[in-house]
Amino acid sequence: MSTAGKTIKCKAAIAWGPSQPLSVEEVEVAPPGKGEIRIKILATGVCHTDAYTLSGKDPEGVLWPIILGHEGGGIVESIGEDVTTIQPGDHVIPLYIPECRTCKFCKSGKTNLCSIVRSTQGRGLMPDEKTRFTCRGQKVFHYMGCSTFSQYTVLLEISVAKINHQAPLDKVCLLGCGITTGFGAAVKTADIQPNSTVAVFGCGGVGLSVIQGAVARKARQIFAIDTNPKKFEFAKKLGATDCINPKDFEKPIQQVLVEKTDGGLDYTFDCTGNTSVMRAALEACHKGWGQSIIIGVANAGEEISTRPFQLVTGRVWKGSAFGGIKGRSELPGIVEDYLNKKLEVDMYITHKFKIEDINKGFEAMHDGEW
Amino acid sequence: MSTAGKTIKCKAAIAWGPSQPLSVEEVEVAPPGKGEIRIKILATGVCHTDAYTLSGKDPEGVLWPIILGHEGGGIVESIGEDVTTIQPGDHVIPLYIPECRTCKFCKSGKTNLCSIVRSTQGRGLMPDEKTRFTCRGQKVFHYMGCSTFSQYTVLLEISVAKINHQAPLDKVCLLGCGITTGFGAAVKTADIQPNSTVAVFGCGGVGLSVIQGAVARKARQIFAIDTNPKKFEFAKKLGATDCINPKDFEKPIQQVLVEKTDGGLDYTFDCTGNTSVMRAALEACHKGWGQSIIIGVANAGEEISTRPFQLVTGRVWKGSAFGGIKGRSELPGIVEDYLNKKLEVDMYITHKFKIEDINKGFEAMHDGEW
Repeated sequence: MSTAGKTIKCKAAIAWGPSQPLSVEEVEVAPPGKGEIRIKILATGVCHTDAYTLSGKDPEGVLWPIILGHEGGGIVESIGEDVTTIQPGDHVIPLYIPECRTCKFCKSGKTNLCSIVRSTQGRGLMPDEKTRFTCRGQKVFHYMGCSTFSQYTVLLEISVAKINHQAPLDKVCLLGCGITTGFGAAVKTADIQPNSTVAVFGCGGVGLSVIQGAVARKARQIFAIDTNPKKFEFAKKLGATDCINPKDFEKPIQQVLVEKTDGGLDYTFDCTGNTSVMRAALEACHKGWGQSIIIGVANAGEEISTRPFQLVTGRVWKGSAFGGIKGRSELPGIVEDYLNKKLEVDMYITHKFKIEDINKGFEAMHDGEW
Repeated sequence: MSTAGKTIKCKAAIAWGPSQPLSVEEVEVAPPGKGEIRIKILATGVCHTDAYTLSGKDPEGVLWPIILGHEGGGIVESIGEDVTTIQPGDHVIPLYIPECRTCKFCKSGKTNLCSIVRSTQGRGLMPDEKTRFTCRGQKVFHYMGCSTFSQYTVLLEISVAKINHQAPLDKVCLLGCGITTGFGAAVKTADIQPNSTVAVFGCGGVGLSVIQGAVARKARQIFAIDTNPKKFEFAKKLGATDCINPKDFEKPIQQVLVEKTDGGLDYTFDCTGNTSVMRAALEACHKGWGQSIIIGVANAGEEISTRPFQLVTGRVWKGSAFGGIKGRSELPGIVEDYLNKKLEVDMYITHKFKIEDINKGFEAMHDGEW
């Protein structure tokens, strides 16, 4: 019996307030409105950004209660009015950065930062200023336009990537955030050139994916840098040529790297969110052309600094969000890369939990090596 | 009677120590060594960098006595052994960044920062660790590989641009630093695209030259920003479309500009050396693609700062030295631009002095509007 056009009752993990465990309860999910689709979420990752928001420290702030989660994979259950590019049954990955193809950002050809629904999405609402979730008679806010910690969720048509049916959703859901963020930063934002040298600061999921991007671009030397040497095993498996623990040196890590590379690196990446590391990453770049890309999200109010001489002598400081990848146009291709075994995803999956045990997922993330 | 191979006695302005007036005296200029040429300097500009060094505040430090000056135009008097690309009688502009075409910087194709003689040049010496100047029996150091405050000077063959004989040396000497620095930052480092928006912070000689570069690249809107509104006359003459004095606003200038440009500028340039202005210039950039280029030289120890979010959301922070221009390969073309009336130079010349009155030149620079 079709559920289209009807409210669906299902389980979701509700965050009722900052620093509280998620509470798995029954929610009501309204049918999709104009330009919207409703999705059955089959799998979702948990990301440090979810944990950061849950901690209440996120300067962007959110309203409670909220359904977190933004790394999902699902199947379209039904579509709303005026939806033309998506059909029920389509396999999709939710996008926290939409791609409307009409705003000046999309049309610029220079960025993936579509801003068409930024103001409502940032406030946990759909563009009609309402939410599609209700729990215990109370409205529940959306998160990053995704809210994948629910068995069903409502998204904008422009906020999903339609992908190959053959891709296992419980794997490629991870392409909804971390892996794409790192991989894209390497192949798109930095546009790493063959035979170049790369340093990746922080070897969590994002950093490992930068390493994959550097390997895909045939970098000659790839430094994996982390203060936790347990992370080096995976980094090496994925193609890091040199693993360095800054704690093993008395000198600042940027100086160590400049000496080891005859003047510095062609590309460096911060995947830590630590502003001191961001500085080290910039200063480890080669004079004349080294580029440093900030991927990590810093704590509220923290700033990056350096001497301007670093830039005047040719280093470039940039950053990217979601690896600069345009979700609808480019993410399906990254899923194909996975299917064609050009991109490792399975290795990133260390645990699986049912939705009822989602708090254990957060614990595993906090305890885990990455 | 040829002077080749002989020591030449001529006048030079000697800086005997920090913060002292220059002293015009007779110096002895040795013949050029291997790979060197000796030049009769016909004209030289005075630059804030000369004044900064003379003040003793330059963190790079110099040794005294020294012959300053790096914005010159001259005629080759004689050449040393193994010089193949330059002949006596050639008209040249000295280059404080050489172009050896053999070091990894030159061969990279990515930068103009040839570093082949960096260590000796920085210490005021020729590559054989000696100086070619003597005054009162004492050795006198070179400055930035140029020392144009002397009627004759010795440079490396790789440290001059050979230019069209028709170019008046008393004009194009200014292409040896400031004008090329600003113009190159616009057309080469930033590579301004047609129909874009530009803001130039600081409308001295360098800033005015950025404006010229923006006009050459058919920028749609060019903001000239300065706290001294007297500078706006020249800025407008050269093509600035909007002149803004930050003192006229209560809001930070970056916010004013973001509001005036529907989200920020495509390109911004710091031509002040003030690190707060550098930050404002970055933050005035448009999300997603805005680029900010640091040209100004900051005081020793000062640092630039911003929130990393500025970069993660697509702004790019870079810098350039000598406008990214490769002196031997590209400066002759800029001289042709001047001869073809594509580049204004004459307007920059506000005063002319004989070498005996060089200290008046410094006074005029300090008192001047730009």
